[in-house]
Amino acid sequence: MPKYVYDFTEGNKDLKDLLGGKGANLAEMTNLGLPVPPGFTITSAACRHFLEHGSVPDGLDAEIERYLEALEREMGKRLGQPDDPLLVSVRSGAKFSMPGMMETVLNIGLNDESVHGLAERSGNERFAWDSYRRLIQMFGKTVLDIEGDLFEDAIDAAKEAKGVDNDVDLDAEDFRALVGTYKDIVREHAGREFPTEPREQMNLAVKAVFGSWNAPRAILYRRQERIPADLGTAVNIVAMVFGNLGMDSGTGVAFTRDPATGQQGIYGDYLQNAQGEDVVAGVRSTVPLTDLEEIDKASYDELLQIMEKLENHYRDLCDIEFTIESGKLWMLQTRVGKRTAAAAFRIAFQLVDQGLIDEDEAVRRVTGEQLAQLMFPRFGDTAGAEKLTTGMGASPGAAVGKAVFTSRRAVELAGDGEDVILLRRETSPDDLDGMIAARGILTSRGGKTSHAAVVARGMGKTCVCGAEELEIDVKARQANGPGNVTIKEGDVLSIDGSSGAVYLGEVAVVDSPVVRYFEGDEAQDELVEAVDRVMSHADERRRLAVRANADNGEDAARARRFGAQGIGLCRTEHMFLGERRQYVEDLILAETKDDRRAALDALEPLQKQDFKEIFEAMDGLPVTIRLIDPPLHEFLPDLTDLTVKVATGHASDDDERLLEAVQRLHEQNPMLGLRGVRLGVVIPGLFAMQVRAIAEATAELKEAGRDPHAEIMIPLVGAVQELEIVREEATRILAEIGVEALIGTMIELPRAALTAGQIAEAAQFFSFGTNDLTQTTWGFSRDDVESAFFGRYLELGIFGVSPFETLDVDGVGRLVRIAVEEGRRTRPDLKLGICGEHGGDPESVHFFHDAGLDYVSCSPFRIPVARLEAGRAAIESNETS
Amino acid sequence: MPKYVYDFTEGNKDLKDLLGGKGANLAEMTNLGLPVPPGFTITSAACRHFLEHGSVPDGLDAEIERYLEALEREMGKRLGQPDDPLLVSVRSGAKFSMPGMMETVLNIGLNDESVHGLAERSGNERFAWDSYRRLIQMFGKTVLDIEGDLFEDAIDAAKEAKGVDNDVDLDAEDFRALVGTYKDIVREHAGREFPTEPREQMNLAVKAVFGSWNAPRAILYRRQERIPADLGTAVNIVAMVFGNLGMDSGTGVAFTRDPATGQQGIYGDYLQNAQGEDVVAGVRSTVPLTDLEEIDKASYDELLQIMEKLENHYRDLCDIEFTIESGKLWMLQTRVGKRTAAAAFRIAFQLVDQGLIDEDEAVRRVTGEQLAQLMFPRFGDTAGAEKLTTGMGASPGAAVGKAVFTSRRAVELAGDGEDVILLRRETSPDDLDGMIAARGILTSRGGKTSHAAVVARGMGKTCVCGAEELEIDVKARQANGPGNVTIKEGDVLSIDGSSGAVYLGEVAVVDSPVVRYFEGDEAQDELVEAVDRVMSHADERRRLAVRANADNGEDAARARRFGAQGIGLCRTEHMFLGERRQYVEDLILAETKDDRRAALDALEPLQKQDFKEIFEAMDGLPVTIRLIDPPLHEFLPDLTDLTVKVATGHASDDDERLLEAVQRLHEQNPMLGLRGVRLGVVIPGLFAMQVRAIAEATAELKEAGRDPHAEIMIPLVGAVQELEIVREEATRILAEIGVEALIGTMIELPRAALTAGQIAEAAQFFSFGTNDLTQTTWGFSRDDVESAFFGRYLELGIFGVSPFETLDVDGVGRLVRIAVEEGRRTRPDLKLGICGEHGGDPESVHFFHDAGLDYVSCSPFRIPVARLEAGRAAIESNETS
Repeated sequence: MPKYVYDFTEGNKDLKDLLGGKGANLAEMTNLGLPVPPGFTITSAACRHFLEHGSVPDGLDAEIERYLEALEREMGKRLGQPDDPLLVSVRSGAKFSMPGMMETVLNIGLNDESVHGLAERSGNERFAWDSYRRLIQMFGKTVLDIEGDLFEDAIDAAKEAKGVDNDVDLDAEDFRALVGTYKDIVREHAGREFPTEPREQMNLAVKAVFGSWNAPRAILYRRQERIPADLGTAVNIVAMVFGNLGMDSGTGVAFTRDPATGQQGIYGDYLQNAQGEDVVAGVRSTVPLTDLEEIDKASYDELLQIMEKLENHYRDLCDIEFTIESGKLWMLQTRVGKRTAAAAFRIAFQLVDQGLIDEDEAVRRVTGEQLAQLMFPRFGDTAGAEKLTTGMGASPGAAVGKAVFTSRRAVELAGDGEDVILLRRETSPDDLDGMIAARGILTSRGGKTSHAAVVARGMGKTCVCGAEELEIDVKARQANGPGNVTIKEGDVLSIDGSSGAVYLGEVAVVDSPVVRYFEGDEAQDELVEAVDRVMSHADERRRLAVRANADNGEDAARARRFGAQGIGLCRTEHMFLGERRQYVEDLILAETKDDRRAALDALEPLQKQDFKEIFEAMDGLPVTIRLIDPPLHEFLPDLTDLTVKVATGHASDDDERLLEAVQRLHEQNPMLGLRGVRLGVVIPGLFAMQVRAIAEATAELKEAGRDPHAEIMIPLVGAVQELEIVREEATRILAEIGVEALIGTMIELPRAALTAGQIAEAAQFFSFGTNDLTQTTWGFSRDDVESAFFGRYLELGIFGVSPFETLDVDGVGRLVRIAVEEGRRTRPDLKLGICGEHGGDPESVHFFHDAGLDYVSCSPFRIPVARLEAGRAAIESNETS
Repeated sequence: MPKYVYDFTEGNKDLKDLLGGKGANLAEMTNLGLPVPPGFTITSAACRHFLEHGSVPDGLDAEIERYLEALEREMGKRLGQPDDPLLVSVRSGAKFSMPGMMETVLNIGLNDESVHGLAERSGNERFAWDSYRRLIQMFGKTVLDIEGDLFEDAIDAAKEAKGVDNDVDLDAEDFRALVGTYKDIVREHAGREFPTEPREQMNLAVKAVFGSWNAPRAILYRRQERIPADLGTAVNIVAMVFGNLGMDSGTGVAFTRDPATGQQGIYGDYLQNAQGEDVVAGVRSTVPLTDLEEIDKASYDELLQIMEKLENHYRDLCDIEFTIESGKLWMLQTRVGKRTAAAAFRIAFQLVDQGLIDEDEAVRRVTGEQLAQLMFPRFGDTAGAEKLTTGMGASPGAAVGKAVFTSRRAVELAGDGEDVILLRRETSPDDLDGMIAARGILTSRGGKTSHAAVVARGMGKTCVCGAEELEIDVKARQANGPGNVTIKEGDVLSIDGSSGAVYLGEVAVVDSPVVRYFEGDEAQDELVEAVDRVMSHADERRRLAVRANADNGEDAARARRFGAQGIGLCRTEHMFLGERRQYVEDLILAETKDDRRAALDALEPLQKQDFKEIFEAMDGLPVTIRLIDPPLHEFLPDLTDLTVKVATGHASDDDERLLEAVQRLHEQNPMLGLRGVRLGVVIPGLFAMQVRAIAEATAELKEAGRDPHAEIMIPLVGAVQELEIVREEATRILAEIGVEALIGTMIELPRAALTAGQIAEAAQFFSFGTNDLTQTTWGFSRDDVESAFFGRYLELGIFGVSPFETLDVDGVGRLVRIAVEEGRRTRPDLKLGICGEHGGDPESVHFFHDAGLDYVSCSPFRIPVARLEAGRAAIESNETS
């Protein structure tokens, strides 16, 4: 039989899979010689058995019995022993922290007899009865599934009957009466008596913890956080210690350094004569931890020693829970503490400088997401700003604008050049235009997976959601906030998409110092210095090159300053917009070969100039140029608008001709229509014009002593034959002009990935277009579905995260791996990159590293994120550049 | 060194890979003791070496030399021997017949000296010089790549100078002069002298045949016919025999039975004093082969014996080329002959009855495509019909209607209830509406891959294309045909999409007797009897079940008569059309839960009734019902139409509300939008209503003693989580009503196939929706691309066939295999089927058999085709049911 129970002296911090985070860390502290109340852990393997078979493994009860007996021997008293009861807590503890789960039942072992023993031994009858009623309350709620309000209502009734306001005004007799009331509640709502046999209490609590793994909230939480569903949870049985035995008792939390800044020091809170749950309930105010020095110097000094020991041992900021029982310090929990993005960077290199960790480890301790947070513009000095309320920071950034209450008004004002903030109770697909027009979005309802949050993040637009203190009245075009403040249409608001803060009036927005550093400023403060050291080390380690998606010289130059090692995606269709639209219209309306030729001839020099600017900005580095991708009608007016114009008699002759063309080119599903390489195959001269512009730009710059490196990329290839046809023409043009360029293809259709072995015959490089590949693999178009149902899908846990944000490894990622493997099998020196938006997403970058790509390409602003994550990925896979 | 050359005595008919079809059959006939002129074959392996390395393999020349010497010994004369030259032909012969390739150079071995020897030996100077000029002409054209017209022009000039019309009027002197002219042409256009050394002639011809494998026409042909590109061709060197040595010589072709009907007898043509190329050129008229009995009884009798021997040996209809040289019969070629669909069925069982083949072989000898041809309606008696012209039969069927010349007019007349035939020079995407409205399409230009042909086949619409004798004048709305016939708009035409015939006036259309047989008529004639025997044996052999795609009781009943073993796809959205549209509008416009509930409640009994009818028609058999798939706005009016209506003031209040809904639901790419399971997840109650209707229909029929078997199919699943959510609700409803049904999913998105192992956890069956799977795998929508560029893609050989007709094995097929393997790994008893249109495509059925599916489902009319091909597939893979 496997071992299902571990005493704290038997485990250690590396056994989180088996013992959960809490159990593993309690064992670790025990082995460090720290004062941890004795106890043991029932493993997650036992839980998995229970979930699968509906019963605990054979022999588990006996094994628990043995460990309980050992605990009783150590404590010198038996569980629930009438004259001097051993009490225990039963705490869940999974590998990953899961707030959706049942947490704790305290005071197990109390019953109608042992409550007297506890009263006598503690000399505190009120404490004993209070502990007993707390047991029934927690047990009833979490084990017997009784509505918690029933117990709260009973305690409120007791206070009302006595005419007092606070629990502290209730005495022993009151609590004794409450115990009776609580037992009645249990009998009535659970259909059974409250179990007074201590071992039965414990067994039921253990099974309840096991079962809580599959509670709906826990399932939902796991789906959203992408925690595997089959891990199960461990259960910790710990001897009770009490912080509420008098003024020489108490409970507290501590951090080994400041989680907001990383500064070393004594941070934490302490509450005298209290148990942990009182701190959470906020019944009384805590004091700063430093006050403990005066209250109980011995315990304080011991705590400081322990904190130092833990930090050195865990080599990281630790977060600690402790209790002092009658002057004796007990450690109840420790774990590596959460921190802000800025603190993470600072702490990482503080620890390096202290010699606790090496640089590899420092880089692993920070994330690209944290770096991205540090790069968003932020509100400068908010000291004088009037904060109205705080919602959830749903999509980061700092936005300032005039309040509007309808999408239509947002579009109107934005059309007049105004910055607007769109206020809605919640948004729906109908608000899409307004969201696009607005600088920021503020809603009074919904969480981080609400429609507003999902769509705003997709757009990269600042969003605060769930600001519940706001009452939004669309009809009156106003919102009422706390303190009788009324916001009317046109009033200026400032919203912080990271903190969720909402300010009245304009707050000045400043660039992030981290961005200034990437732009070339010298390091100025400890944070920027830490970022600098992180980036240097990540660059040293990473194997993946990082390129930029940029369509003009200016963006290319900026990307280079941010560290881009070339352009991975230059979209040429942007060069068909603006005043050049006319040529595209001419091209489409051309009735003869000569007309078409003339339109193409007019476009060529303009394209050539565009390419020259980009080549100059990226001199010496590769520039991947994608030939025109979208369908031609995207450059023409909208069908419905034009039809209405013609039908209502407002159209010119030109409009009527144009309408015919628009109708001819109209597609039911343009994303799946005549675009990409299909255009190149079907429209004579179109790709040739673009290739010629690239070739001539290259030739002219070489002539001028520069060093351009063009890579010509064919979009939307599904079959090697398409590529062969286009490649043949391009090769001929390059040879004519006497320059060289790589010719490769996007892999953005499932079929391209599935036949990559064939396609590699004709391609010198692949670049994964993961946006389109995600759309075709899932069969949904981002524009249509993100707003229509992604919020609902995230709520239901169908996605943990939008597959447009983080690469879907099981589906799209599998295609990427197939294409990498089979493409390289055909052509071992095939260059492999990715130019979808996933190129700047931290988790996805790790996948691309593992999949063996040569580079990722992303928007200029995400380049530092990609560099950092590429370094972290290399370190994690023990590779070096 | 491998053996690169085989004497005809060394080969046999099973060595087609190495010797090509022609060489293998010549060897086979030689070994049968038939009079084949001696010769040898250079293998396709030598060709492959030549193509890869640009030179023939080492030692090949010496090997050829040895074989040539043996041939010379056998013939008693040397190649080009001046006084009595051995002449040879050099003929290409690949494994598959390829009309795109160079075929033959005759008379190799003639030069300025040996021409005299030939003249003397044959006693026919004119014959000798004519043979010599033929050599230069064929050699110049096929080996030296000189434009053939140059030679034709020279011969025309010679005739003109002499004042005669026919080649037969040219004498020896004229041909001697032409030899001089031809040599000048060679010198001028090939930049070299005509090679007079016989071995050089032969070597150059061999290399030219090798090289012709990669001629553009051959490449294109292979792409279109899907012949592998790396096979190479063999080359046959055969001693020349002459059918043009006088009236006791001649040449002919023969069939061992009638290729049109299968009837046994003497079929063929004979031409006295001629060579094969004269028959092809049609210079003189042939006589029926039976006349040979009078002309040369000995040769005739020998030929009949040989034909019987060949048929018994090949156990099939053979097609034969022969030459009689001065009373001596020579066999030049044989192969299994082409035949009509009706003949194929009749011959197959004639051969069984003769004891030549078994029933397995008989079923292999017919195809589903042939069966489909036999099932199309056809023109009954065309004896009295006035045939105007013949084009290419591009999409089968028989269509009668009034001629129209524009799509607009086609739509107008069809709107008035008229049958129309659309006449166009060629069609373009602009003609789509007209093509949909017409009964048939007739074009004067373009081949089987033209726009008209591709789109018509996709629609299943009768089409004749490339009727080049018609001059179509769209402006005048008329067409001029041969014999000064003018067709005006409104004139009635009848077109035959199989034969390509175009008749003036109405020809009566009759049902196919084969369809009447499937409908239940007793077998009436030999053809129907043959079909019956084929189908019985195919049914006995096949492992794949065949189901029908049908949405109502009537179609289901017909499908059952055709042999369907259940319904594989019942689309429920068709049940939302017609007068029920109002409920869908109500559902979409519902502003409250109650309104929505009311709309769903109104739909439910209607759906239940639909299901009951289908269950009754398929009593005892499975019926797979797909829950609603298309996006809701498909049930609403068109956005542009409605916008115009509102903008021009013609709208009611209801229209304006409707417009708001249409705008809200409008999607850029509806195929990739809110549809399928996404609707079920997002719109409360919609799927539940459908499941309830299915469950209640089942319960009511069971109550009435019937035996319904519902299988509930969820469309467009991309992630197992979607399926879990819908499945949970459906399971609950089924349990409530107390009936059972399988619950499964479509696999129609790449991600579903790629994560099939996960999805199978929640699915009892998979049905591959290969239409959508093709669309998403390739990233194109059939509606948008088939008309826009498929014709061009087929012309360029990017596709050999539309992937919507025949499953794309490399891309879509790979996904199917992945899903089958990984789905079954999770759930070994997973039921697997396919319900896309590929379910009725012969080649695709073989793939589905090989991939291990349990059934295919197709439209009722294709069921016999699927049954036959499933049987053939099982026989081919040596499996039995």
